[in-house]
Amino acid sequence: MKIIIVGATGTMGKHLTTAFKKEHEIVTAASKGGDIAVNITSPASIENMYKQVGPFDALISTAGPTYVGPWEKMTDKEFKKGVDGKMMGQINLVLIGQHYINHKGSFSLISGALTHDPQKNFANASAANGAVEAFVKAAAIELKNGIRINAVSPTVIENSPHYFPFFPGDIPVTMQQLEYGFRKALFGSNTGQVIKPY
Amino acid sequence: MKIIIVGATGTMGKHLTTAFKKEHEIVTAASKGGDIAVNITSPASIENMYKQVGPFDALISTAGPTYVGPWEKMTDKEFKKGVDGKMMGQINLVLIGQHYINHKGSFSLISGALTHDPQKNFANASAANGAVEAFVKAAAIELKNGIRINAVSPTVIENSPHYFPFFPGDIPVTMQQLEYGFRKALFGSNTGQVIKPY
Repeated sequence: MKIIIVGATGTMGKHLTTAFKKEHEIVTAASKGGDIAVNITSPASIENMYKQVGPFDALISTAGPTYVGPWEKMTDKEFKKGVDGKMMGQINLVLIGQHYINHKGSFSLISGALTHDPQKNFANASAANGAVEAFVKAAAIELKNGIRINAVSPTVIENSPHYFPFFPGDIPVTMQQLEYGFRKALFGSNTGQVIKPY
Repeated sequence: MKIIIVGATGTMGKHLTTAFKKEHEIVTAASKGGDIAVNITSPASIENMYKQVGPFDALISTAGPTYVGPWEKMTDKEFKKGVDGKMMGQINLVLIGQHYINHKGSFSLISGALTHDPQKNFANASAANGAVEAFVKAAAIELKNGIRINAVSPTVIENSPHYFPFFPGDIPVTMQQLEYGFRKALFGSNTGQVIKPY
């Protein structure tokens, strides 16, 4: 299976690349340092990535820039980071990628527990996650040719301890659990699901 | 209670204005035809609205422009309608309005069943609704001074029969049910809730 991993140089992307490259052809994409440079906030850059990669079977996205910061000073401008990044970046990966992906292919996006379990300073990520999860459900009934779409929704992940203080009492999701979530999304048969790997 | 109704000239806004003006001071706001002209896609216009209205106790938003159309041709450009409109329009009503609303005031936004129950042609509205609902949960733990926030989430509404063919088998929400939803949001004590008035 030929799999594109967007966000491949990040904490989650690195783990998934290592895990899946044993059995699959992996194309790594990232803002820098991957096989292919992609800026997910630019539809033109996304289109260019797909043109370089050619036909593929699955796309994994772990790319989720959002704004983290105090609520009182949050304006439209700070909020835009997650809207252009984790939300529209991932939605555009699908809207554009549907024209390049092989029949029976799959898109697996990243959301997160903040959709239903908010934390202070993370309203931008909550909104982006909520948009991605609802989009995944809508896209599942629209995509043709057996193409599937799911979101993997972890809580805070074990390899990001600097985030632990923002998520009091949340049991960190292990990298192994996260990998299981993406395995279910890629190699299972479901579509339109929000997979919680915990 | 002094209540701003944004989207006051639309189907839902007209009903709510009539219902609530018997017992409350209502300020109607709309792109045109209300007491105050507001373009919710412009943060400057929203700020201007609040400056004109002065202190208030509750804001109701029924303003939800989104793109409705065939999936295959949907791009970033069409998608922007709901992102700038129903999503960021409503989010900016809160981010800006928190600095003008009275203590113990409330924001009541509009989402919709498309968050969890998608229909063809409505992926843009699904994503916008999902963002609004997750934002409401996040904002509820951030807002100070007893200020509450909720979303009212109807299915298709009885006064929009031109939408019925897009929502096969959905039992239309009556205007009375919708009004109950907003009554619960405004006059109840809950916060961070997605109220389904059916």
